[in-house]
Order: sequence, then C-alpha cells, then structure tokens
Amino acid sequence: MKWPMHGANPQYIYEKTNLEMPVDAIDFSANINPLGPPPILLEMWNDLFQTVHLYPDPFASRLKEKISNKYGLHPKQLLIGNGAAEIISLLGRILAGKKVLLLQPAFSEYEEVCRINQCDIHHHYLSAETGWELIPSKLEKDIRHVDAIFLCNPNNPTGIYYPKQIVEELLAICKKNNCYVILDEAFYDFVIGYEDMLPLLKKFSNLIVIRSMTKMYSIPGIRLGYVVASEELIVQLQQFQSQWSINGIALRVGELLMGQETFQNKTQSYIEEEKERLFSFFRKAQFAYSNSAANYYLLRDTRLTDQKDFLTFLLNNGIIARHTYNYPSLEGEWLRFAIKSRLENQQLQGVVAKWKQSHPLSL
Amino acid sequence: MKWPMHGANPQYIYEKTNLEMPVDAIDFSANINPLGPPPILLEMWNDLFQTVHLYPDPFASRLKEKISNKYGLHPKQLLIGNGAAEIISLLGRILAGKKVLLLQPAFSEYEEVCRINQCDIHHHYLSAETGWELIPSKLEKDIRHVDAIFLCNPNNPTGIYYPKQIVEELLAICKKNNCYVILDEAFYDFVIGYEDMLPLLKKFSNLIVIRSMTKMYSIPGIRLGYVVASEELIVQLQQFQSQWSINGIALRVGELLMGQETFQNKTQSYIEEEKERLFSFFRKAQFAYSNSAANYYLLRDTRLTDQKDFLTFLLNNGIIARHTYNYPSLEGEWLRFAIKSRLENQQLQGVVAKWKQSHPLSL
Repeated sequence: MKWPMHGANPQYIYEKTNLEMPVDAIDFSANINPLGPPPILLEMWNDLFQTVHLYPDPFASRLKEKISNKYGLHPKQLLIGNGAAEIISLLGRILAGKKVLLLQPAFSEYEEVCRINQCDIHHHYLSAETGWELIPSKLEKDIRHVDAIFLCNPNNPTGIYYPKQIVEELLAICKKNNCYVILDEAFYDFVIGYEDMLPLLKKFSNLIVIRSMTKMYSIPGIRLGYVVASEELIVQLQQFQSQWSINGIALRVGELLMGQETFQNKTQSYIEEEKERLFSFFRKAQFAYSNSAANYYLLRDTRLTDQKDFLTFLLNNGIIARHTYNYPSLEGEWLRFAIKSRLENQQLQGVVAKWKQSHPLSL
Repeated sequence: MKWPMHGANPQYIYEKTNLEMPVDAIDFSANINPLGPPPILLEMWNDLFQTVHLYPDPFASRLKEKISNKYGLHPKQLLIGNGAAEIISLLGRILAGKKVLLLQPAFSEYEEVCRINQCDIHHHYLSAETGWELIPSKLEKDIRHVDAIFLCNPNNPTGIYYPKQIVEELLAICKKNNCYVILDEAFYDFVIGYEDMLPLLKKFSNLIVIRSMTKMYSIPGIRLGYVVASEELIVQLQQFQSQWSINGIALRVGELLMGQETFQNKTQSYIEEEKERLFSFFRKAQFAYSNSAANYYLLRDTRLTDQKDFLTFLLNNGIIARHTYNYPSLEGEWLRFAIKSRLENQQLQGVVAKWKQSHPLSL
C-alpha cells in the first residue's frame, strides 16, 4: 500500500486503508495549535477582504521589516515563503546535484525535495534507544563528504529538542568542512526554554534557519514561513521564487501576528499541561513515547513492532494518527499524534484504553 | 534607472522615479477586472475563515473536478497553481537548458523564468506597424531550432487576440518540429467571441494551456491559476511544485467561481463599452493605441518616441500607467493601461487632455 506522504487531509488515509471515516473523527495527524488562530485574526477577518483585489507586494517589504525588527535582523537576511514548504523547495534548487546529509527520522519533504533536485542523499540514523540523541562529533566523518545537512529542531516527528550548545557544536564542525546547516525551526515557538539560534548567524555564515508561522498560529490554510540566512544566499533563493508567491492575506496576517507573544505563552502552558496529563496516562498504560518538547509526540504500543493494527483500530474509532511508514528508521514502528484540546486528548485516551481492553494479552 | 519589473504595487514606481505619490492616485498598471470580485466572494467571506486552520488539500481534488467538468477535461490533465506565475515558474523547470522562442513583446516573466533555468532564449519580434500581426509560417525557420514557444493570447501587453485558426497553424508547425506551444490564456475570458482552444489538446499533444483566475475575478491577492496539458507533462510539472502550494482560501474561492458566467458576460460588456469610449477619445486626441481584445491596451503620444515625459506627467497627476521599458521591441515607446471603472477612465481622459493642453506643440 502507498501511504499518504503527509498528515492532515485525513480523507486520504481512510481512502488508502479502505476504511470508512467516522463523521466525528478527530485529526491528530496535523501538528497545529489546538487553541486555533489568535482572536485578532477573526476580529480582522472582514478587513482582510481588502487584500483580495490587489496584487501582493512581491517584496513583502512591510512583513520583512516587522520580522527583522522583532529579531534584530537586516531585511536582506530574510525571504518570506509560501509556507515553510516553499522555502524547503527553494533550498532544493541551491542544493541541486550536491551531497546532502539527512538526520533520520526527519520531515519527509527534505528527502523529497533533494530527490527531485538530483542530490546525492546520505542518511545518519538517530536511535530511538538513546531517545534520538544527537552527538555532533559522531557526525564529523559524514560531514566531511557533504555540502549540507538538514536538522529539524525540535525534530519532526520525534519532538526532540536539541539545545543551542549541540547546534553550535554541529555548526562549528560543518563550518570547518564547508557544509551548510539547514536548521528547520518550524516548531521552535512551542519549546519552553527555547534558546534563540538566530544570533548564531553572526558567527556562522553556513547557518540557514527556516521558520513556519502556520503551526503556532494555526494558519496552515494561509501558508506562511520564512528563511533567515546570509544576504548572498537570500539573493540566490529569491531568484527561484515565482512572482507574487506569498498571497496578500498571508502577508497581512503575518504582520498582525508579529505582536502575539501572550498567545504564544498561553499556548506553551496549555500544551505543557496536556502533555503531562497524556504522558502520565501513557506511562501507566505502558506505552512508549518520545520525550517531545513540541506540540506532538511519537507513541507506540510496545507489544507491537509494526503499529498497523493499532493505527487501524484508532482510525475505526475516529482517531486519526500519523503513520510513520515514510520515516526511515521508524518504518511504521511508531505513530505520531498532535497535542490537541483537552477534550480531544481525553477522547484519544478513551480509545487507547478501549484498545488495551480489547487486546489485553501480549500481541 | 531600474524600472519595476511589473505593474501593480505602484509605491515602487514612485520610489524609483523619486516622485511623490498623490493620495488619490489611480493604478492603471494592474490589469484587474474593474467590477471587483464577484459578489459571492464577499457573501461567503465569513465562511472562508474555516479554511484558515486546515492544511489545504495538496491534490486540489475538488477544484480539479469542477474545472474538469466545466471544460470536458480529465482531472489528470490539470495542475492548479499558486497563480499562473507559479505555473510559468514550474514550466521553467521542464524547459531548463532548452531552446525557447519568445514572441515579443511578451509578458516579462517568460524570459525571467527561462533565464533562471539557463534556457537558450530566442526572440521573434512582432511589429507595431502591422498591429503585432502573427503569421505562423514566417516562424517556421525559427521553430525548427527550438523546443518550446510561448504565445500569450490575448497578448500581454498589446491585448491583441490571435484567433483559433492562427493558433492551430502554429500548433501544426510546432508539432511537426517537436516543439511545445505554451499558450498563456491569462486574459482569455475577457475576449468577446473567444474560441475555446482546449479541444485542440486532443489533436496536439504539444499544447500547454496556462490560465489565470485572478484577472477576471479580481483576486490577485489570493493567487489562483491552472495549466492544462498532457497527463505525462502534468506529472512532470507536479513533482516540482512545493507541498500545499495553493492556499486553502484560493482552493475554496476557485470552487465558488466556477459558476460565474453571468459575471463574466457582464464584465465583457462593461469593458467593451469603456473601451469604445476610450478609443474614440484617443482617436480624436491623435494618440496611437493597440487594437486590444482584452481589458488593457497600449497607448502612445505619437509626438514622442520615448514616452517618459508623458509617463512622468501622468504619475504627477495621479495616473499610474505601466511603463514598457522591459518589453523588448516596445522599449518605453508605449504605455500600458488597464480598462478601469467609467469614473476612473474619465479621470484618465481628463489628465490626458490636460497633458495635450499643456504640451500643445510638436514635442
């Protein structure tokens, strides 16, 4: 069976598995803030209609200025993207034909984009047994032979957060070996105690930081992300971007979201509380889970290797998890779940309890 | 001076020319339906908020089905784009390193995208003296040596419409010479008496049709276009498209717009009436203009070669025209204007009259 490439749009996983989608199914496969978009979006929604009939600013000047001011950057170090996915796609053009190292398990788009651009793809597998620990010095031998390495932090799908010291060690090794570090921070703003990595750009010209605004602000339908890198690299990336790639609503929404720190803090607390409740439940139920710093986590019924039966049971009971068949080194042995609202997380717990009850013995 | 690449976003032309933008300036440089978006969009605007927090369908299945049904196509012959600009950008990847013929003057993105993709670019210049007439047989010698030709119909910036017979002649010559015809129909729905070119796909596998939904429906801020071609070519194009490239609002709006024939007819009549009024005025004022079938036209004060003084006068008087410095063969000797609302077109006439009055003699 060909599993869907990504989470979200759960109609496709029901289609592929030939199961019927319950009307009240809950989608845990998309890692979006359960609090929904910040209230200011609904408040401003009518005004946003004014962006529809105008061409978007192809230079995104106002949004770039706001982001630059917030993070102490120069606007020329920034490129706004039609979602972080477009940024990854543009990076693929820079990497065309080059050697790229992927730390697995990793967001599947890196490999997809590298493949399309005829990169020479290498893998380094982080191990579930060590909690997906990353020891940069162990990578040095691999790094010598590659032009770029992708690091997702916190990682998707594990949720593991690599602290600044580890990232800096990796950057130093890569700099010595003329290797770019593509640091995908799509979920950085969910991490309590996150240490800002952008100041590392001053010291490491080989650093490229990708960020998404769609996860924290629950706007995946609008598409908005950005990349921070050296001015030279931004110029290179920009030439590959199609005209007016970021729609006018996204540009305006991005500007509105720049001052939403309170919303971000509220989200972090909410997620933290839910995570504690969920993890405590999973510990008692003797499930294994990843020590996630993000708004999603990996889970497995330790009695199963391939989690397919568990996944199918969940789907039949209206719980949509993300399979991991297209994550090298996970290969279906884990499932990924977003942390959703309390009520939804409780429903998940209920279905998991039902699964254990109906499958009490060693499987 | 480096002129802005495109129309719209008029702040940039005032910036480049060091002129102050009047608060009530009217933008004639963006070729958008003066009637604004169809009323259904405002009516449905609140419902569209529901698309914000969901990942868009990466396969755009529902919209593809609606477009296919309307035009008698198979959904596999279709790819939806983040505006027609993204489609052109994706075509550039297919054309990478190949020989491409551009019929000049043409939409500047063709050359831009070909350049980025290291194409070998050739030009064939259509002449203002013949009203930019296109005689396919005269192109045969050039076509023998190229892999693809871009034809914008009606052409941007001239507005000249090439009837189906001419397009079919061109397709036949190109087919014989293994050459793709990329037919950009971004403005086809403004043409009264337009003959549907899509049935030609059955006979000509070398035909690629690009369409935009942003011009007729006045939604350039939302970004929506599509390409129709052979299934094989669509598969090739799709692999280069970044994930979730078409935002959720655009997908839903596209579905809503599929049944808007009345709006299209009303627009065509409105534009036709305004065009007659404007062209009659320009004839009397002894200005030259292109015999446009679209919602824009080229104009020149025949007493000037370079229209810069006229353009500057217009800008100072709050009329924003599109310069033509980056259109090979026009080179600033014409200006392009959108057909806007009656009131706005009358204001343009007023400023043109003022220009003639203040510059009465041969220039």
